[in-house]
Amino acid sequence: MSDASAFVAGYSGEVHNVGSPRFLTGASKCESSSSVLAASRRSHAPRERRPNVVIPPMGARTASTSPLSATSADAVEPPSSLALYDLAVSNFGARVRLVIYLLEIEHLVQMRTPTELGGTKSEAYLALNPQGKVPMLVVERPGQDALPLAESEIIVQYLLDVFPDTGPKSLRIANVHTPELRALARSATRVQDVYLGNLQGSLYKAMDAETRATSIRSLMAQLDLLEILLCRCAKLVGSDSAQDVVFFGGRQICTADCALFPSFVFFEFMLPLFSLDPFQGRRPRLEAWWRALLREGAFEKVRAQIRTELDGWQAKGRWANLGILDQIRDHPQLFKA
Amino acid sequence: MSDASAFVAGYSGEVHNVGSPRFLTGASKCESSSSVLAASRRSHAPRERRPNVVIPPMGARTASTSPLSATSADAVEPPSSLALYDLAVSNFGARVRLVIYLLEIEHLVQMRTPTELGGTKSEAYLALNPQGKVPMLVVERPGQDALPLAESEIIVQYLLDVFPDTGPKSLRIANVHTPELRALARSATRVQDVYLGNLQGSLYKAMDAETRATSIRSLMAQLDLLEILLCRCAKLVGSDSAQDVVFFGGRQICTADCALFPSFVFFEFMLPLFSLDPFQGRRPRLEAWWRALLREGAFEKVRAQIRTELDGWQAKGRWANLGILDQIRDHPQLFKA
Repeated sequence: MSDASAFVAGYSGEVHNVGSPRFLTGASKCESSSSVLAASRRSHAPRERRPNVVIPPMGARTASTSPLSATSADAVEPPSSLALYDLAVSNFGARVRLVIYLLEIEHLVQMRTPTELGGTKSEAYLALNPQGKVPMLVVERPGQDALPLAESEIIVQYLLDVFPDTGPKSLRIANVHTPELRALARSATRVQDVYLGNLQGSLYKAMDAETRATSIRSLMAQLDLLEILLCRCAKLVGSDSAQDVVFFGGRQICTADCALFPSFVFFEFMLPLFSLDPFQGRRPRLEAWWRALLREGAFEKVRAQIRTELDGWQAKGRWANLGILDQIRDHPQLFKA
Repeated sequence: MSDASAFVAGYSGEVHNVGSPRFLTGASKCESSSSVLAASRRSHAPRERRPNVVIPPMGARTASTSPLSATSADAVEPPSSLALYDLAVSNFGARVRLVIYLLEIEHLVQMRTPTELGGTKSEAYLALNPQGKVPMLVVERPGQDALPLAESEIIVQYLLDVFPDTGPKSLRIANVHTPELRALARSATRVQDVYLGNLQGSLYKAMDAETRATSIRSLMAQLDLLEILLCRCAKLVGSDSAQDVVFFGGRQICTADCALFPSFVFFEFMLPLFSLDPFQGRRPRLEAWWRALLREGAFEKVRAQIRTELDGWQAKGRWANLGILDQIRDHPQLFKA
């Protein structure tokens, strides 16, 4: 078998267009991203004001003698250009947008769509992001090749990294009060990235009824796990009442909450189709968390963006067209709430 | 459908015993972990010296007025007890062990197996870790409930967090030189956690021939992606020759390298069964990376631990017994290298 003949993701959470894209391999191909991007840049004028900071190239440092040693990071300067390739309906894109709003750096990030590079299956896009997914952030610094970064959590951490003094300090997991709460915040992020994100498609994608029902049961079990994680956070911050608001990093909102929130916009919209809801009266911590986030402007903004897209899906009859409503009607045993 | 009736993981990377374990839900059940652990502790004397540090409870802080504010973390004290539930063959467990060796904290972590709690499917184990996986770290502090942490990356970050002044500084991604290299280190970690970890089972688990062949092709494509990430790291540190050693955080070893290494022990052992190898003469950066890691004592130690287990699988005829060798023989088109 040719090991570069196909690229089939082992995980579909962040996939919007996967198919069987061609996969760029080998060191020589690695170098092509810069020119591909340059071509794209020529044909698309930036939509937002771009910063004109000129920063010397970083990273070319003398190798130290041992690969395990006492070094530390260089001081951080923001890059000269940031472009986010995104789709309004993407919950993973929404997570990056949410952090951009909270950091108040909208004017520093050009918002683009994969269409500008020919779509996520195009050679130009795959040269930058072989997984063929959104979101993707393309970073530029003077004297360096453009660097594409895939995966929403990587992009969020990068933005926090290059804008260290911007936005609410509490957003950064490193600033969460205790190591146990930091571990719980990271655990919640991981529930989204490794489990929930993969299961979410069962609410709106084509699949057989049995696979769908099994995935939805798994999704609900992950919501139970989130309730457990919130209970553990509550204990650590001394919160006794389940109506009391606790976030995944304790008393304040951090990136773990941002990671999960956009998927909950999908859940509140779609679970009722299956006679379910995200809280079911038995996940009180999660419900209090959700209601508290809805009171924050940046979260409400992102929710409105996603709902506009989902309303469009609804108006076009997505759940009827994909036979999902038929599955629910024809398999009452499978979809019994 | 009862949303707590079954727990079917959407991801099998870190699963050793999943099945259909019972799933603990609701706030009241959340509180049971401490007593379960206490019962276990009574019947099993610690195997290693335990630290006797007495630390006041942390985390119970006064809520600030806004959930998005300028707070920062408390100073860190190590917990009073750490117990790692692990299996020698687990690549995810090996990743935690590797970091324990690099931090030189073996004497501070009790090494246990899930068997001591009745196995990963037992009620006692699932009360602590509803995903039913290894590794799991159980953290204790005076005056607090025992806190179980699942998922190798969460455990690794927690250990780095509570032992901030221990081990090589370069191990921490926060100390990698530039934000771009940090993003690449996090990207490589994520390739392991979201993609490779999920695909690895295709080399040694029961599945139909077509699923196996497709998964192995995807696995090889992920190795191509790792080569691309290393090429990008190399550019950022000014390395021109593919024989030059570059790690996923640049010139020095960080946790991203630790995340990937144990799976490569599986790959070097098993890919030859499919007439493949992890480098194929076309992933020179990855090959130089692998050879450099093998020169580090902690990595060689973990490799030996895993290989002992895999030699045992081989001696018991695992690949013949599961019909994998038959699949390769019967489907030459599918498994054509």
